[in-house]
Amino acid sequence: MKILVLGADGYLGWPTCMYFSQRGHEVLGVDNYFRRYASIELDCEPLMPAPNLLQRAQVWQELTGKRIEMAIGDITDYNFLLEIFKHFHPEAVIHYAEQPSAPYSMIDRDKAAFTVQNNLLGTLNIAYAVKETDPACHIVKLGTMGEYGTPNIDIEEGWLDIEHKGRQDTFLFPRQASSLYHTSKIQDTDLLWFYVRTWGIRVTDLMQGPVYGLSTEESDLDERLMPLFNYDEVFGTVLNRFIVQAVSGYPLTVYGRGGQTRGYLNIKDTMQCVYLSATQPSRPGELRIFNQVTETFSVTELAEKVKAVGDRLGHKVEINSVPNPRAEKEEHYYNPKYSGLLDLGLKPHFLTEDVLADMFRVVEKYQDRINRNAIFRGISWK
Amino acid sequence: MKILVLGADGYLGWPTCMYFSQRGHEVLGVDNYFRRYASIELDCEPLMPAPNLLQRAQVWQELTGKRIEMAIGDITDYNFLLEIFKHFHPEAVIHYAEQPSAPYSMIDRDKAAFTVQNNLLGTLNIAYAVKETDPACHIVKLGTMGEYGTPNIDIEEGWLDIEHKGRQDTFLFPRQASSLYHTSKIQDTDLLWFYVRTWGIRVTDLMQGPVYGLSTEESDLDERLMPLFNYDEVFGTVLNRFIVQAVSGYPLTVYGRGGQTRGYLNIKDTMQCVYLSATQPSRPGELRIFNQVTETFSVTELAEKVKAVGDRLGHKVEINSVPNPRAEKEEHYYNPKYSGLLDLGLKPHFLTEDVLADMFRVVEKYQDRINRNAIFRGISWK
Repeated sequence: MKILVLGADGYLGWPTCMYFSQRGHEVLGVDNYFRRYASIELDCEPLMPAPNLLQRAQVWQELTGKRIEMAIGDITDYNFLLEIFKHFHPEAVIHYAEQPSAPYSMIDRDKAAFTVQNNLLGTLNIAYAVKETDPACHIVKLGTMGEYGTPNIDIEEGWLDIEHKGRQDTFLFPRQASSLYHTSKIQDTDLLWFYVRTWGIRVTDLMQGPVYGLSTEESDLDERLMPLFNYDEVFGTVLNRFIVQAVSGYPLTVYGRGGQTRGYLNIKDTMQCVYLSATQPSRPGELRIFNQVTETFSVTELAEKVKAVGDRLGHKVEINSVPNPRAEKEEHYYNPKYSGLLDLGLKPHFLTEDVLADMFRVVEKYQDRINRNAIFRGISWK
Repeated sequence: MKILVLGADGYLGWPTCMYFSQRGHEVLGVDNYFRRYASIELDCEPLMPAPNLLQRAQVWQELTGKRIEMAIGDITDYNFLLEIFKHFHPEAVIHYAEQPSAPYSMIDRDKAAFTVQNNLLGTLNIAYAVKETDPACHIVKLGTMGEYGTPNIDIEEGWLDIEHKGRQDTFLFPRQASSLYHTSKIQDTDLLWFYVRTWGIRVTDLMQGPVYGLSTEESDLDERLMPLFNYDEVFGTVLNRFIVQAVSGYPLTVYGRGGQTRGYLNIKDTMQCVYLSATQPSRPGELRIFNQVTETFSVTELAEKVKAVGDRLGHKVEINSVPNPRAEKEEHYYNPKYSGLLDLGLKPHFLTEDVLADMFRVVEKYQDRINRNAIFRGISWK
């Protein structure tokens, strides 16, 4: 298949390019280096040095003989994106090209406006490019479990049958997110769902929980192929950050009471989920939604797991509750369903002590590069 | 009260400025003349000549002695909007400043992108300006009944209690709109609902049905004070368009089977609803939602009403079903609730034969200015 990966430079983008390439697919990656530039601006650069995309594609080709094409540019520029579609004729688009950070979206008005504009115009442009060049092209959009928030009812996979006063209909599962970034992902779902109904395009929306992990089978080939790994408050996900904190002797920052429960998954499982979705597409006129998680944990549970393994490895791990900079419930009901991707063939990698120990070992190698200032600044939701 | 009216030049904006001014409130109106310029670009200018806002404010002052302040500019420019807030210190903001046309949003990618960008950045900027200058300032946003689409269950006023597998929660009523414009209004609700929860700002969202009517008590004072009245496919609402079609001998264009049912209201009732909402604000941290309609009709019912009155007044009114350019259900269940504004004190003006006859008489005076080319071009949703 011809796979277009938008947001190819990010934590998931580059591993995804390699994953498809390794399995014989033709891959074109696109990125505007937003994450890279923003990490410089905010002094929160990734843990490992990351060669740029052209360099990484070259390393990949040298090691495997497989070619990944790269184009550097901004998908909110419609003419740029349309040329990509006309040149490459993708059969599936993996859409990661969004501003992906909740704290970033809460820093100020300009960054909020950037988030809305970037995430919605990018998504709108993809829908139009698909319609104008090949409506059968399947859009696989990375959504987030955060769109649902923490409802007091079970979280179904994207849809909810509602009976009301003796009548019945099916709707998108109610969404109410706890950051502007997550809200922009509700909004891009609004957009895609509208064009699915109106134009009959095909979309899979992957409602992903926070991802953890430092490597995939492909990135393990060479240090220069590792994902862009952020561990900071802005771009780092919680478990990745906790491991870095544990290694650098920085007490794990649990926000408030730590009862915030989320669904998590290993980066290796993200690769599988995206691959399974792309190779088994949704039907024309269908918005297919999967909850992309493999296990749920509270923040406190995660911190305790990290402490247990870290202590065993000789780190003295402390856990520190800090005043919660976010507006979110710290104790709540949480029961998401996530059988759809298992039905497609997902074989989960669960969060075992061995998995955590492996993460520790990789982070320890880069210990000298940890920037403690980046770990926690308390970007406030207020 | 100090009332900031954003989108002061539009069909509802200018009458709203006068309505508040007449009742002793201090009014500042803001507009970027989008509607006026787009009407020129698309050759669908309003039926009556409309002096610009500064001129209309001057006429108003000459006739009533009351001053309405005006500022011409674009609220997607945050610095412009922030200066307005700092200068005027509004106690309520009436937010009409959105691209308001469904067909316009479906013309092409550029107009779709404009709609998303204009409507969401404008709304985001208002939320930020309120937070930065006076979080107690009440935002009254014009929403639309079109956000709900045509669900198979009763449409409650904004919210729905859901019981699912023995557990219960309350959510925004499910929204799935039938145009990109209407989708952008779902998205601005997403935005405001997020900031209401996070910052505790106060918002009233008025889910308005299509408005009809040519005049209000204040605009009747002088022809130069009449609303910007579009009757075309792009910016005209359906009943207004039907009256103009009847007067100009253009068969009424019923889209498809004509069973599309919507809730309607008289422009005089819009004035009341906005006034009642602004003078009886929602609480801090509350997103209050009203369904702003007074009656429901199918398109065929509207056409038949217009024909009956038109024929009696000597017009030979024909009704013509045209292939539906939109993607929408032509027969469907429709049962919206709308008691909230009645509880606040709304006294509805229903669509009687007298009301229709009055509309005919005004349109007849401007018969020579009707541009038949603008009435129907069949802007397609596909």
